[in-house]
Amino acid sequence: MKTGGEPTLAVLGATGAVGSVLRGLLSERRDVWGEIRLLASPRSAGRKLPVRGEEVEVLALDEEALEGVDVALFHLPDDAAAQWAPVAAAKGAVVIDSSAVFRAEDDVPLVVPEINAHAARVRPRGIVASPDCTTLALIVAVGALHSAWGLESLVLSTYQAVSGSGREGVDTLRRQLAEVAGTDLGTKPGDVRRAVTGAGPYPAPIALNVVPFAGAGTTDGWTTDEMAVRAETRKILGMPQLPVSVTCVRVPVVTGHSVAVHARFENEVTVPQAHEILAAAPGVVLCDAPGEGEFPTPADAVGTDPTWAGRVRRALDDPQALEFFVCGDNLRKGAALNSVQIAELVASPG
Amino acid sequence: MKTGGEPTLAVLGATGAVGSVLRGLLSERRDVWGEIRLLASPRSAGRKLPVRGEEVEVLALDEEALEGVDVALFHLPDDAAAQWAPVAAAKGAVVIDSSAVFRAEDDVPLVVPEINAHAARVRPRGIVASPDCTTLALIVAVGALHSAWGLESLVLSTYQAVSGSGREGVDTLRRQLAEVAGTDLGTKPGDVRRAVTGAGPYPAPIALNVVPFAGAGTTDGWTTDEMAVRAETRKILGMPQLPVSVTCVRVPVVTGHSVAVHARFENEVTVPQAHEILAAAPGVVLCDAPGEGEFPTPADAVGTDPTWAGRVRRALDDPQALEFFVCGDNLRKGAALNSVQIAELVASPG
Repeated sequence: MKTGGEPTLAVLGATGAVGSVLRGLLSERRDVWGEIRLLASPRSAGRKLPVRGEEVEVLALDEEALEGVDVALFHLPDDAAAQWAPVAAAKGAVVIDSSAVFRAEDDVPLVVPEINAHAARVRPRGIVASPDCTTLALIVAVGALHSAWGLESLVLSTYQAVSGSGREGVDTLRRQLAEVAGTDLGTKPGDVRRAVTGAGPYPAPIALNVVPFAGAGTTDGWTTDEMAVRAETRKILGMPQLPVSVTCVRVPVVTGHSVAVHARFENEVTVPQAHEILAAAPGVVLCDAPGEGEFPTPADAVGTDPTWAGRVRRALDDPQALEFFVCGDNLRKGAALNSVQIAELVASPG
Repeated sequence: MKTGGEPTLAVLGATGAVGSVLRGLLSERRDVWGEIRLLASPRSAGRKLPVRGEEVEVLALDEEALEGVDVALFHLPDDAAAQWAPVAAAKGAVVIDSSAVFRAEDDVPLVVPEINAHAARVRPRGIVASPDCTTLALIVAVGALHSAWGLESLVLSTYQAVSGSGREGVDTLRRQLAEVAGTDLGTKPGDVRRAVTGAGPYPAPIALNVVPFAGAGTTDGWTTDEMAVRAETRKILGMPQLPVSVTCVRVPVVTGHSVAVHARFENEVTVPQAHEILAAAPGVVLCDAPGEGEFPTPADAVGTDPTWAGRVRRALDDPQALEFFVCGDNLRKGAALNSVQIAELVASPG
């Protein structure tokens, strides 16, 4: 453990899938932290997990464990986040929360460091929220283009990976794939539905299928995921009136969210300029030579930090509209990485 | 074999995946045909295949075999279609062609019987073309809404099944799924790419992945599939200036193409009216109660005739725009069924 003036970081929810990616990131990135404290539910307390090359013992999350924490990275379920974020903030920690609880709150900034780092400075409740993984798959690329041309509207269709639903999503896809592999399934009505045992977190089979429903429920036919991507995109870009239409679809991919984007701007666009903007944008990798097999796919984006952008085309009927396709790792930039970036920003606001 | 005044039907390409679906349809539907003649390459000649409960011997495709044919259903590769369609037409057959060769020709009608049956009456070259499977996944639903409200523009993102690439696509997905099932693949950069042997017809792995490239090449960054959906939609609807933006994405589904549709109309739309229109549209099944798990998926649409439509929402920022999601069997309505419907229309123009 380090000593001195370096800030103490607490990681809440260090034992899950995102927690594992997060500990990896803390080990790989420039080390700005003093103590790193791993906190989890009492049943995980006592386990030792590697961070920065050391085995660190997991402590049970309680008020005492939050004493002296400068920055608290929350990767907890919504109910636990709602309970513990105010406690950590009251003890003086800046809370970086990845749950859905605070993202829509007016007095909680929603931050993507490449886009609106400034917003992290004003945090009346001591809480900074990190967006949903689907928003994070597209926002860095969209934000860069918006800076250049002024966004006017978005139409988005997603291709969301099962790890966005946590381990239960991954386990469900893997089990269903084992059940359909080596069969002739997928050619008769309902044959996949009858063959797979248990839909897990999904309302339909996810193996050999796509499921146009992602989220916890619907409002006027829109799913919670669709409404979240819309609201978060508006908030991060500071455009509360931006027209955004989203269709969220789950696909049989383990990790890596993709989005087909139709973006209309206030100004005329060109593909060469779009390439320049995306190639220069922090956090974006341009991958766009489809004739030579160069385009983003989740299988290539998984395990990497940036948003991969490609298939850039100007709409054939509208010189102000651009089509493109983005992929990002929903556990890295889509969760762990963005929260670590916010934590670093808060710890060293430069 | 029947005799009398009933027309003689020839099926060219009766032995492939679409041919198999087609023979099933000819056996299930109201029988308007006299002789049904099965024609294929010389290596398939002599095989016996079931149609209408009888075993019919496959004949080698040559000029003689086309004598006396009234309607010829072509399900051949592009080069064979280009060669044989004029021959069959010269012998007096009406050619219903499912290849890409004639779809864009000004003097060849492109027909979807629910939408533009009238167009099949004027066929200067004796050829009627049937659209691409992706166009057919959406056009019946879109056409019905257009009739009511007047279409102004379309933004489409597809979720295309591998059987759209023929048996090679299906074989590739099945082989790759066997290679990744039971593994932890899909969590590290390139791990799926390294694990699968042979990409088949695809420029990237299709198991545990989505591939934002469908077609034979690109023009200004647009793939041939994307350009085809745009051109065919315009031609079928008789709207040569309709703004259409398409992103075509292949997904690991065996059969059943899906499309997320953003459609803008000349008039205000409402969801209840859209439900009425879609429920009443021939060839469409409305499936739209997402809170109760009712939405279209390819696993449910496969093996069925209609286009399944659901997830109907009015754009939150534009009372003239509708979002919805459609699924259709790319081998049935997307290929065999539409061509049989055209053949029936030509045989009994009513």
